Amino acid sequence: MNAPTTGSPSPAPVTLVGCGPGAADLLTLRALRAIEQADVLVYDNLIGEDILHFARPDAERIYVGKQASRHTLPQEEINALLVRLAQAGRRTARLKGGDPFIFGRGGEEMDALRAAGIAVEIIPGITAAAACAAAAGIPLTHREEARSLVLTTGHGKPGADEPDWAALVRPGQTVAFYMGVSNAGEIAAQLLRHGMAGTMPVAIIERGATPRQRIHAATLATLVARLSEAGVKAPALLIVGNVAARVADGR
Amino acid sequence: MNAPTTGSPSPAPVTLVGCGPGAADLLTLRALRAIEQADVLVYDNLIGEDILHFARPDAERIYVGKQASRHTLPQEEINALLVRLAQAGRRTARLKGGDPFIFGRGGEEMDALRAAGIAVEIIPGITAAAACAAAAGIPLTHREEARSLVLTTGHGKPGADEPDWAALVRPGQTVAFYMGVSNAGEIAAQLLRHGMAGTMPVAIIERGATPRQRIHAATLATLVARLSEAGVKAPALLIVGNVAARVADGR
Repeated sequence: MNAPTTGSPSPAPVTLVGCGPGAADLLTLRALRAIEQADVLVYDNLIGEDILHFARPDAERIYVGKQASRHTLPQEEINALLVRLAQAGRRTARLKGGDPFIFGRGGEEMDALRAAGIAVEIIPGITAAAACAAAAGIPLTHREEARSLVLTTGHGKPGADEPDWAALVRPGQTVAFYMGVSNAGEIAAQLLRHGMAGTMPVAIIERGATPRQRIHAATLATLVARLSEAGVKAPALLIVGNVAARVADGR
Repeated sequence: MNAPTTGSPSPAPVTLVGCGPGAADLLTLRALRAIEQADVLVYDNLIGEDILHFARPDAERIYVGKQASRHTLPQEEINALLVRLAQAGRRTARLKGGDPFIFGRGGEEMDALRAAGIAVEIIPGITAAAACAAAAGIPLTHREEARSLVLTTGHGKPGADEPDWAALVRPGQTVAFYMGVSNAGEIAAQLLRHGMAGTMPVAIIERGATPRQRIHAATLATLVARLSEAGVKAPALLIVGNVAARVADGR
């Protein structure tokens, strides 16, 4: 890392802020303070106005989520943007839904910033599995029913990148599928093929911990039909495991 | 559920409050409000004075953690206590470290309260894996290195209750062991026996996200020696996986 040349500002640190599932009151106090203090906020989908309004009125807001054209700013461009803002000496809060380090691609942003010699602070957030489980009344681990919890996406092409389906059908665990609606058919088929019972309870939590939350009960065998008849749309989390039997539909 | 008899108060709802790893500023705004509004706080270890001081001065505090005699109130007694408090019409906040539904035994408390006809609200909290990963700069999932995350304890007797070691050595995942220090020898031996490389990075996060946090770098092969020479004591979290290679020791 070179010393700054005369006249150029010192790089500012960047804070990757876990903002939780979207409900403003599921922000942590630390996240709230980071948002209040930032010169610039870089944010994407799931970060709503009720969170952004905590920012200073003069703070710049940069949206990097899906555009009307349905394209998202590529991750490399987001990384480069964060580096530029930090090198310009501006205190930057990178707001991320959920937790920055659980399916948030925060690791890539941290790695890019550190490679550029920029200090990074990470503020953890309430991840979707915890938020949705609390909202639905589903213990993710349970002394009798689940001694471990797997968080995964169920996405990935066959081959090296394919989900390890055999590991996901082991007894005594709960599996939470993030962004699981679009490929629910593949998830259900693979779990059944690898030996999970069709009667295994599945809870579907749509727009969890937001005012428009909907919770649906299914089983592995009925999952696809249930998603279709209820018209479930992303974002939604699937919780697969005996613990999900507690869900009463339509709450 | 019987209707209350004349003169007895209506049962109050009970709130299971996820308080995160211990740092007061990692409370959510929702948790803070629940603590401020409670008539009674039922709490155990890891809930410190900097969290308790948000309670009303007249709120009753009931400690149910480890006593000087080193005994913990049995879970069944805690469940019964919560039911009694609710039936007496007192607004009760049950404060739990981390998230109530991830190794918090919140599921058992919710089940007992619901069985007694008492309404339960769950407030999710920052679980230890997220808190420690943020503090140590370890992305728990990563596009290139870990497409899933397993949270487990590594505890359990051989037989039906034994951890599924084979599922924990699969490539492309990160495994976070909660309360993993006391049986780190067993964890390391089993993972090696089931085929994990001795060079696999392990990060040890002791008292994560507290002022006395210490972070240590090890590998699966050096884990036990590292714990011993550093004098690591519970509570500590172990993060096992390629992502843990980012940890610089002694931070």
